[in-house]
Amino acid sequence: MEFSAKQIATYIQGCVVGDENAKVSTFAKIEEGMPGAISFLANPKYIPYIYETQSSIVLVNKDFEPEKEIKATLIKVDNAYESMAKLLTLYESSKPRKTGIDAKAVIAPTAKIGENVYIAPYVVIGEGAEVGAGSQIYANSVIGDHAKVGANCVIYPNVTVYEGCKVGNNVILHAGCVIGADGFGHAPAADGYEKIPQIGIVIIEDNVEVGANTCIDRATMGATIIHKGVKLDNLIQIGHNVEIGCHTVMASQCGVAGSTKVGEWSMFGGQVGVAGHAKLGDKLYVGAQAGIAGNAKGGQTIIGSPAIDARVFARSSAVFKKLPEMYTTLNALQKEIENLKGQLNEAHKTEQ
Amino acid sequence: MEFSAKQIATYIQGCVVGDENAKVSTFAKIEEGMPGAISFLANPKYIPYIYETQSSIVLVNKDFEPEKEIKATLIKVDNAYESMAKLLTLYESSKPRKTGIDAKAVIAPTAKIGENVYIAPYVVIGEGAEVGAGSQIYANSVIGDHAKVGANCVIYPNVTVYEGCKVGNNVILHAGCVIGADGFGHAPAADGYEKIPQIGIVIIEDNVEVGANTCIDRATMGATIIHKGVKLDNLIQIGHNVEIGCHTVMASQCGVAGSTKVGEWSMFGGQVGVAGHAKLGDKLYVGAQAGIAGNAKGGQTIIGSPAIDARVFARSSAVFKKLPEMYTTLNALQKEIENLKGQLNEAHKTEQ
Amino acid sequence: MEFSAKQIATYIQGCVVGDENAKVSTFAKIEEGMPGAISFLANPKYIPYIYETQSSIVLVNKDFEPEKEIKATLIKVDNAYESMAKLLTLYESSKPRKTGIDAKAVIAPTAKIGENVYIAPYVVIGEGAEVGAGSQIYANSVIGDHAKVGANCVIYPNVTVYEGCKVGNNVILHAGCVIGADGFGHAPAADGYEKIPQIGIVIIEDNVEVGANTCIDRATMGATIIHKGVKLDNLIQIGHNVEIGCHTVMASQCGVAGSTKVGEWSMFGGQVGVAGHAKLGDKLYVGAQAGIAGNAKGGQTIIGSPAIDARVFARSSAVFKKLPEMYTTLNALQKEIENLKGQLNEAHKTEQ
Repeated sequence: MEFSAKQIATYIQGCVVGDENAKVSTFAKIEEGMPGAISFLANPKYIPYIYETQSSIVLVNKDFEPEKEIKATLIKVDNAYESMAKLLTLYESSKPRKTGIDAKAVIAPTAKIGENVYIAPYVVIGEGAEVGAGSQIYANSVIGDHAKVGANCVIYPNVTVYEGCKVGNNVILHAGCVIGADGFGHAPAADGYEKIPQIGIVIIEDNVEVGANTCIDRATMGATIIHKGVKLDNLIQIGHNVEIGCHTVMASQCGVAGSTKVGEWSMFGGQVGVAGHAKLGDKLYVGAQAGIAGNAKGGQTIIGSPAIDARVFARSSAVFKKLPEMYTTLNALQKEIENLKGQLNEAHKTEQ
Repeated sequence: MEFSAKQIATYIQGCVVGDENAKVSTFAKIEEGMPGAISFLANPKYIPYIYETQSSIVLVNKDFEPEKEIKATLIKVDNAYESMAKLLTLYESSKPRKTGIDAKAVIAPTAKIGENVYIAPYVVIGEGAEVGAGSQIYANSVIGDHAKVGANCVIYPNVTVYEGCKVGNNVILHAGCVIGADGFGHAPAADGYEKIPQIGIVIIEDNVEVGANTCIDRATMGATIIHKGVKLDNLIQIGHNVEIGCHTVMASQCGVAGSTKVGEWSMFGGQVGVAGHAKLGDKLYVGAQAGIAGNAKGGQTIIGSPAIDARVFARSSAVFKKLPEMYTTLNALQKEIENLKGQLNEAHKTEQ
Repeated sequence: MEFSAKQIATYIQGCVVGDENAKVSTFAKIEEGMPGAISFLANPKYIPYIYETQSSIVLVNKDFEPEKEIKATLIKVDNAYESMAKLLTLYESSKPRKTGIDAKAVIAPTAKIGENVYIAPYVVIGEGAEVGAGSQIYANSVIGDHAKVGANCVIYPNVTVYEGCKVGNNVILHAGCVIGADGFGHAPAADGYEKIPQIGIVIIEDNVEVGANTCIDRATMGATIIHKGVKLDNLIQIGHNVEIGCHTVMASQCGVAGSTKVGEWSMFGGQVGVAGHAKLGDKLYVGAQAGIAGNAKGGQTIIGSPAIDARVFARSSAVFKKLPEMYTTLNALQKEIENLKGQLNEAHKTEQ
C-alpha cells in the first residue's frame, strides 16, 4: 500500500514542507533511506543524515530548521518520534492476526480459555489456568496450573509461566522469559543449604512488556509485583518479593535482588544491579552498570558502583585516569615540604 | 488446614509467648501480615514491623526482646529463618505431586526411565538417556542422547540438557536453563575463527539447584563440574571446564570464565565476573559486581573491579567522590610550594 | 579407535619426539591426563603439568624446550592449539549425524525444507519459512513465519527465531537463544509508554555461532546485522539495529545497546556493556566488565567503566587502593604548608 505525504500528514496532524504528493510504501532509518520510504529525525545526532537521505519523506520536529537544501519532503509534527510510533502502530495493526486453538496444544480440561485467542502447537496450559479473550500464545510456551493470563496478551515461543502466577491484560512476554521460578532462598545448615520453599507468586499488571529470557522470580510468601506499564528489556533478573513501580523502564541485563522496591517512572540503563531489601524513590535515573547498594531517593541521576550522583561520578572518573600522576606528585610534594622544613629549620638556627 | 501456636511450637521445638490457641492457615511476610497468617522475623531491618503486623503468629529468634507491646502470639526458636523454612517445607510437601508419563512425551526406546516419575507433554528424551526414580520433567524440556538425570530431580519447562551430560540426585533445574552447550572455544585463523569442538560433558552432583535461564557449558575435554550442594541463581554463566566447589552459592547474573576453579562454601553476590584459568580458595565472599581477574585466597571478602579487600574498597570508594576536590587541592599545594620555595630563595639571597 | 603418534603427526604435519608407536584413543586436558589419551600444551600457565601428565602423547608448539624429563611422547607442531582443534574436529565429524524429519514436527505447508535435514519432534516451522540443505533443528525450536535458515546450520533445542529473520549458512544457534524479539523502543506519553512497533528483522550471516540464551533483537526498521564469522557466547544481549563486524568475538553476558556499530576482528571480555548509537573501530580489545559510553577507535585495548586505555586503568586501579592514605597525606600536607607559610611570615616580620 502506498500513502502520500498529504494523507500521512492528515493522520498525524502534521504540516507538509515540500511535495504533498510524495508517496511512500515502506519505512527506513534516516541513514538507510531509500526512495519510497518514510524516515524520521528525532535524535540530534542524526541531523547530518537528513541532507543526504534517499527517503522520500522525513518526519521532523516542528522546530527543526534545515541549514541547507533537503531533497526529501518533510512533515513537521509536535514530536517526530511519537508520530513515527503512531505510523508504525498503524502498519502493525494492519497485519493479519493468527487465531484459533491448534489441536496440538495441550489444554487441561479445567482451564478456561477466552474467545478469539490464538494458541499454537505444543503450547501446554495447566489445570485451572485461565487465558483471557484475544490473547495469543505461541509455540512451545507453558502456562502452569492455576496461572492466569489476561486479555489481549502476546506470549511468544518457549515462555514459561509457573504455577499460580498472574499476568494482566495487554501484556507482552517475549520468547524464553520465565515468570515465577523459585526465588533464591536457602538457609545454611551444617551439611549444606536447605531450600526455603517459595510459596508466593508473581503478579504482572496491565500493559507490561517483558523481554526475551528475562526472569521474574516468585515470592517466598506474598507476591513479586510488576506494576502496570513497566517495560523490562531482555535478560533481566527480578528477585523474589521485588516490586517495580508503574511505568518504570529497565534496559537489558539489569538485576534487582530480593525484596527491593523500585519506584515509579524510573529509568535504568543496562547491566544495573540493585541490592536486596532496598527502597528506591520515584523518577530515579540510573546509568548503565551502576550498582545500588541500598536505599536511594527518587528524582536524581546516579551511576557508578557504588552508585553516586552522576555529575560527581563523571568528574571523579575524569580524575581517576590521573591517579598515578597524582600519586607521584603527592609523594614529590611530601619530599619538597620536608626539604622546605629542613631549610626553614636551618634558617632559624642560623638566625639564632 | 489450620494449626494452633501450640501445635506449631511442638513441631519446631519452640516456646509460645502469648495465646497458645492462636490459629493460622497461611503464611505472610511480616510487613504484609494478616489475621490467620504466620510470619517470621529474622532480619533486624524488619523489627519495626513486628509491632504493627496483623499476623496471628510470628516466629522470632529466642534472644528477641520486644520493646513494646506486640499483638501477635510469638513462638521463640533457636533460628527463626530455619524454623520458617521447616514449616514451608512441610507445607510444600503436603501438595499433591504429579506422576505418570504423558503419551505426548517422546522417549527414545533405548532410554531408561525409573519408577514413579512424572514426564509431561512434549518432553523429549534421547537415545540411551536415563531418568532416575521419582524425578519430574515438565513440559517441553529436552534430555539429550545418553544424558543422565538422577533420582528425585525436578526439571521445569523448556530446559535443555545436552547429549551426555550427567545430573545427580535431588537436583532442581529451573525453566530455560541450558546444561552442556558448547564451551566458547575458537582458534583464530587467517580467514576467521575455527571452532574447537567441545567433546567433554557437564557433571552436576547431588542437591544442586540451577536457576532459570542459567547456562553451564560442557567441557572442551573432560568435564565442567558443579559439586554437590551448589546453588546457582538465574541467568548465570558457567564456562567450560569450570569447577564449582561444594555448597557454594552464587546470586544471579554471575559469570565464571573457562577452566576456573571456584572453592567450597563460597558466596557470590550478583553480577560478579571471574576470569578464566583462575583458582579461588574456599569460603570466599564476593560482593556484587566484583571482577576477579586471577587467583584469590579463600576466607576473605572482596569486591570491586578489579576485586580488592572489601574494607579497602569501601574506604577508597568514599574517597573516590572527593577526587576532583583532591585534584584541585593538590595543584594548589604544588603552586604554594613553588611560592614558598621562591620566598625561601629570596630570603636566602637577602641574607647573603 | 586407536591412533599412533606417527599417524597423528602425519595428519597434523608434526614431528614426533619420543615413541612413534605410542597409541591413544581419547582426549584429555594436560592436567587431567591419563594413559591412552592425547593432550596439548599451548597456554604457558600449564607448562608445569607436562612434566607430570599421564597422557601418552602431548602436542606442543615447536619452540617448546623441556627443562626436565617428560614421560609422554611429544608431537611438535607450528601451533598446538590449532592442531588440537584439527584433531577434535576430525573426531567430531566421525560421529553419526541425525537426519530425517520427525512426524511430530509441525511444518507449515508453505515452508520450504532442503535436502538431508534433521528436524526433531515438536519443532515448529512457520508459513513461508525456509530451511537449507543439511541443517539440523533440534527439539522444541521454533522457526517463525517467513524466517530463513541457511544450509548446514545446527539449531539446538528451545531456540526461537522470530518471524522474517534471516540466518545464513553454517550457523550454530545454541539452546534457548532468541533471534528477533522486539527491540526495546517505547515513546513516553502522559499515561505511560507507547510501544514503538519493531518492524525490522535480524540478519545473521554465514559461520556465526550464537551462545545459549543469547538474545539478538530485531531492528525497529531495517536490520540488526551479525556479520560473517562472529562468535557470540552465552547470555549476550544485542540491541535493535546493532551491527557486529565480521569475526568479532564476545564472551558471555556482554550487552550492546541499540544502533551501535561494532567493528571487525574485535574481542570483548565477559560482561562488557556498550551504550547505544556508538561507533567502535576494528580490532578493538575490550576487557571484561568494561563500560563503553560512546565511540571508540579500533586498534586499542580498553577496560574500566567508563572504559579507558587498559594500561592507564591498571595503574589507576593500583593507586585506587591507596586513596584513603593519599587523602590523609594530602590533608596533612595542606596543614604543613599552612604552618610553613606561617613560619615564613613570622620570619619575614622578624626580619623587618
